[in-house]
Order: sequence, then C-alpha cells, then structure tokens
Amino acid sequence: MPPVVPSPFEPRVQRLREDVRAAGLDALLVTHPPNVRYLTGFVGTAGVLVLTPMRCLLIADFRYAAAARELLTARPAGSLELEVPDRGYDEAIVSALRSSAASRAGVEAAWLSVSRFNWLTSSLAANRSMRESSRTRGVSLIPTERLVEARRAVKDAPEIASLREAARRLSVVARELRSFVRPGRSERTIAADIDGAIRAAGFERPAFETIVASGPNGARPHARPGGRLVADGDGVVLDFGGVYDGYCVDLTRTLHVGVPAPALVRLTAAVREAHAAAMAAVRPGARPSEIDAAARDVLTRHGLGDAFGHGTGHGLGLEVHEDPRIAKLPAALPDTPVVPGMVFTIEPGAYVEGVGGARIEDDVLVVEGGCDVLTDVPIEI
Amino acid sequence: MPPVVPSPFEPRVQRLREDVRAAGLDALLVTHPPNVRYLTGFVGTAGVLVLTPMRCLLIADFRYAAAARELLTARPAGSLELEVPDRGYDEAIVSALRSSAASRAGVEAAWLSVSRFNWLTSSLAANRSMRESSRTRGVSLIPTERLVEARRAVKDAPEIASLREAARRLSVVARELRSFVRPGRSERTIAADIDGAIRAAGFERPAFETIVASGPNGARPHARPGGRLVADGDGVVLDFGGVYDGYCVDLTRTLHVGVPAPALVRLTAAVREAHAAAMAAVRPGARPSEIDAAARDVLTRHGLGDAFGHGTGHGLGLEVHEDPRIAKLPAALPDTPVVPGMVFTIEPGAYVEGVGGARIEDDVLVVEGGCDVLTDVPIEI
Repeated sequence: MPPVVPSPFEPRVQRLREDVRAAGLDALLVTHPPNVRYLTGFVGTAGVLVLTPMRCLLIADFRYAAAARELLTARPAGSLELEVPDRGYDEAIVSALRSSAASRAGVEAAWLSVSRFNWLTSSLAANRSMRESSRTRGVSLIPTERLVEARRAVKDAPEIASLREAARRLSVVARELRSFVRPGRSERTIAADIDGAIRAAGFERPAFETIVASGPNGARPHARPGGRLVADGDGVVLDFGGVYDGYCVDLTRTLHVGVPAPALVRLTAAVREAHAAAMAAVRPGARPSEIDAAARDVLTRHGLGDAFGHGTGHGLGLEVHEDPRIAKLPAALPDTPVVPGMVFTIEPGAYVEGVGGARIEDDVLVVEGGCDVLTDVPIEI
Repeated sequence: MPPVVPSPFEPRVQRLREDVRAAGLDALLVTHPPNVRYLTGFVGTAGVLVLTPMRCLLIADFRYAAAARELLTARPAGSLELEVPDRGYDEAIVSALRSSAASRAGVEAAWLSVSRFNWLTSSLAANRSMRESSRTRGVSLIPTERLVEARRAVKDAPEIASLREAARRLSVVARELRSFVRPGRSERTIAADIDGAIRAAGFERPAFETIVASGPNGARPHARPGGRLVADGDGVVLDFGGVYDGYCVDLTRTLHVGVPAPALVRLTAAVREAHAAAMAAVRPGARPSEIDAAARDVLTRHGLGDAFGHGTGHGLGLEVHEDPRIAKLPAALPDTPVVPGMVFTIEPGAYVEGVGGARIEDDVLVVEGGCDVLTDVPIEI
C-alpha cells in the first residue's frame, strides 16, 4: 500500500467545520467550484461537496468520476467520500442531506441560483411530508455568505508555494513584452504572442482574456485586443495572467512606443507614483481602504482622481478575483485589516479619453512587517 | 449623421416583450451575460438589462462604459438606454424598477444568486415601506425560467451566418489535426498546436479547454491534456471549439496512430455508425430524445450502451452549451421537437476503461426536410 502523503485538505475541512458550527449550522452545501477544489482537490466545472459533522461527501458526475476516484486514493480513509449520482446532482444532495443528522444546512447564497435553491427547498419539504411518520427530521436550507472564501483569503503553505512559482513564471513572460510590442503589430497579434509565452512558461492556460490596449484604446480599462496596429507614440497597456497548479497570477505593464504625448507621459508617471505608494502601504494591520487611499491620493493630487475608476487590487488564488478586495469598500462591507498569508494585486491605473491610459500591476504576499513582492519585473521594460 | 444600420436587436427585444407579457409580467431583469448580449450586443462579463414596457435599459459599469456608449450610437434613438451606476449594479436595478410602471418583474432564476435575489427583494420592500404614502407601487420579483434562452435556441439570419462561418473555419483547423498528432508528442503540446490553429483561423479564442485524450485517457470523456506522449497504437480523442463573432462551434474527431487494438477499432466503428444514425435522424419535428435514441440504439446493439454516458448533443450559439439538449431528458423537462434554425452538435461517444474511447462530433443546422451540416471534415483524417 502506498504511503499517504499529508494533504492540505484535512486541515482546511477541519477549520471549515468549526466555522460551520460557529454559524449555528450542522452542514454546509458547497457549490462554488473553486471552494470545492480548495476543500478536496477536485477539479471540474461541476461537483458539489456536502459537509456534515460526520461526512465530507463529494458528488461528481460521470464525466469526472475517474479523476475523482484518483483523488480518494491519496487521502486518509474516510476523510472524503465520492458519489456519482445516477440521476442529477440535486437529487443526490437531497438524499445526502436527508440521510445526515443535519437539520440546518448552510448553502452558499452567492453561488446557488434561485432556481436551484427553490427546487432543493421544495424537494426537502416534499420528502419530509411524505415521511412524516419516520424518524427523519426535516432539513432547512440557510443562506450563508463567504464562509469558505474567508478561509481561502489567507493562503496556507502549499498555496503560497504555488503562487510564488506562478508569479516567478509570469515575470519571465513580462520581461519578454518589449519583443512583442512593436509599431505595425496588431493588438490581437501581440495578445496571441503573450498567450503563447504564458503557455510556454508552463501555465495551464491564461487566467483571463489578455488585454492589449494601445493608443486611444488604453483609455478603456478592460479593452479587448482588436485589429488596431501599434503606432509610434502609443502607450500600450498589457494585462495578462496565468493559471499554474490551479492558482492565478496577474500582471500589468504599460509600455511606451517611441515618445508619447506629454500628457500621457505625465499620466503614466502619476500611475507609477501611485503604484509605489500603494506597495509601501501593504503591511499586516493595514485596512484595504488605506492601501487603496495610498494610490488614490497620489492620483487625486495629480488631478487624476476621476480617471481611476476601479479598485487598487484584488485577491489571487484559485480564482483570479477573490478576497480581499483592496478598495474603498461600500459602507456595508467590512474593511478588515489584511493579515500575513494574503496574496493580492496592486494595480492602480488612470484612463482619460483623448489621452490614453496606464496601469501597473504587481502581486504581493503580506508578511510580517510589510509585503513580499511575488512578481519580479522592472516597472519600465 | 451616419445611417442607422438595421440591427437584429429590436426584433429580439420585441419578441421577448411579448413573452414577458404572456408570462403575466410587466418587466424582466436579464442578468445572464449571453442573454444581455443577445438582446443588446453588449459584450462584458457584467451588465444587466432592465426590460420594461417602455424602456430597454442597459446597466454597465465604468469598465465597459465606453464600449456600451458605442453600441448606442448604432441603434435607433430610444431603443436602448445606458446607465453607468455611481454605486452598485443592484442599487441601479432597484432604482430602475421602482421608477418604472412595473409591479411584477421577472428575474432569471437560473442566473440570479440567492444572495442577490434576497438583497433586491428586501431593498424593493424597504423602499416601499419608506414611501408608503407616495404613489409608487411596490415591485415583486418573480422567478422565471429560460425566457430568453427559448428564443435564443432558434437562430436568426445574422446568427446563422456567424455560426456557418465559424464552423467553416473550425473545419479548416480540423483538417490539420493529422499534422499535430504524431507518436512522441505530448497531449499538452498537441492541445497548444490546436489552440494556435484556432487563433490563426481567426477565432477570438478557444470556446473551451481543448481536449486531447490519448490511449487510456481516451476512456475519460472530459480528460484534460497532460504530459502523456502519444504512442503507436493509440486512439486520440480531439475535442475543440472556437468563438467567432461571439458564436461558439465545437468539433471532435478521433484519430488512430498506427494500428490500435481490435477492441478499440470495433468501438470506434460503432461510434461512427451511431454518429451517422443520429445525423440522419435530425429533421424538423424530431424530438431530442429520438435523435439521441438513434445514436444510443446503435451503441447498445454493439454492447456499448453503458459506455455512452453523456447526451448526443447540445445547442450552440453565444454559449457553447445551450438549448436544445439532444438527450434522453428527465421526465420533468419537455422533449420539444426541434425546428428549423436550431443549431446543435451531434457527438456520440463510447468510453471503456482498458480499451480507450472514441467520440465524433459535427455541428448541424436544422432546415426544412433535414439538416445542413455546418462542419465539413472527413470522419477519418
């Protein structure tokens, strides 16, 4: 029998069970695929985890059954069970919840549709009334918010190792940018070159659709690469990411081709200053709003406050946008200080119609006393 | 002033308004991005359409504002309005619904989370109670299912033109497969070649993660390409797709390298026969279950009924999986006959551990009297 390698999944499940109990629940239905992956290692676009005090049951369909069975062999006996349902996922969920001792099962409200919630609720109710005379208690579904996400925001050691290696590889891609960005080449061609370099660097795939926004298109923070040819005097915003070992990293540089107009040079310099200010503000105990303000205040001082219409950063992990949000948060959301183990982007930008745009983005890990910059690329390439 | 080109969006919105009225509703909140795109042309991962009897209001955030404004210039005055909210999307939805004459607003229950539904419902209720003395009536949110999807399942002329061109281009990629699949090359390398060919053929991007499943991996219908090197005697299942002008096409061929084991040759021959039988069954009035049975009966006759664990096909359009589902549907779902204008895949397969797998997939358009095969690739490459 092969030795069982210690896996990160048992401690993750254990911590979540504590959170579930603390929320006054006795089960949790995990439907968001990255959350399922975090807790089990299961990779698939579908797959549901039913976590009860006694069981950690992965429900996965036919398509993923062989891959899911392999997961189980690497895990301590009984720590993860697999069910491949004959009928649908939701029938299997109802059956698992009913056969558990659960009476209050949390659902991931942000990751469960109204359709599915209503079907599950009415199925659990219908079953209950059909069996009123049995000993089985009914199961109520209780909306929960971000239970798994809150744990995922603080990375454990294997996650930090994956993110560090991913950022190292993405930095290799970034250092090649100058060879892709030349006058006469189209945004689309440059994007294809970047995507090729991402794959050549060992990534599973780009983490999102690569952004190459040249000249006037730079004024659009999420421009899609088009047929426009890079011209002398352009600023070119290049924003790209990769998925490595399941983990996402994300990097932006703004290149100038030839000598751009003075207004764009000034705008770019202001963004650099904002980037440096935000990086310097990252340390344990800093609030996301404070890190965001560090960048925003610089841009405001340069008259570019309105030109910075997005947040300063976002968490990275199994998703390319996850907790924490580094932004001036709406009053309803908690502005919880960052802690060691969090990994997020710092990416201030400025976008002005008629001038163009600039954005600079690096990925940081919060460590005692400050931050560890995982990406390693000169600001100017 | 530039001439206004007739757009497909006004007739689509008009038909949907009729459906909304027929469902006893006076507004619809469209939250599924492909549905928003279908009705407005808006391309973005976020964006919400509020359709009332008088207004067609697109809510899009800062990131997409410039692109959304361009859409408006190409549309008849008043047919589409844009709002870029100061605060969040949901605040803007509440405001738009409250200022409309709507009292029963449909929501897309499959595409709205429990979190968001609960927030919107309580915000609309809170506003109502705060203004009890005003003339404004309250707005109830009513779950609806597949209103826009049902219309999307039958393609209009511009959609058919896009899908036809996309399938033509994907067929060009498919005819190159033999040059990619050679002994000693890894699945991952072959997948990268296919993805490169997809981009070179003019697609925006692959429609999904390309599948290259060689030898034993062929027994997994959704295997992810890995480091395995193609070897003599392998069957290799290659399943890939592209997005062209927003529309998705999807194609699979199974190549043999050298001479595979007799069991795999027999399995592949059975899949071919099943594919031909299903293609022959496509015509207006055929039920999805009948088309599926045409393929399934052939495989069952060859002792491979249990080896065919997925449906025979799926609709193609702005999504790579959409209506109609060509499968033996659960009793709860309507087995509605297909009609001219529907575009879907025909992709029977068989997967046997220890033998391998095969799948053959083409894309068809239902036309009077039968089907028009949009893909154009020999079964054997």
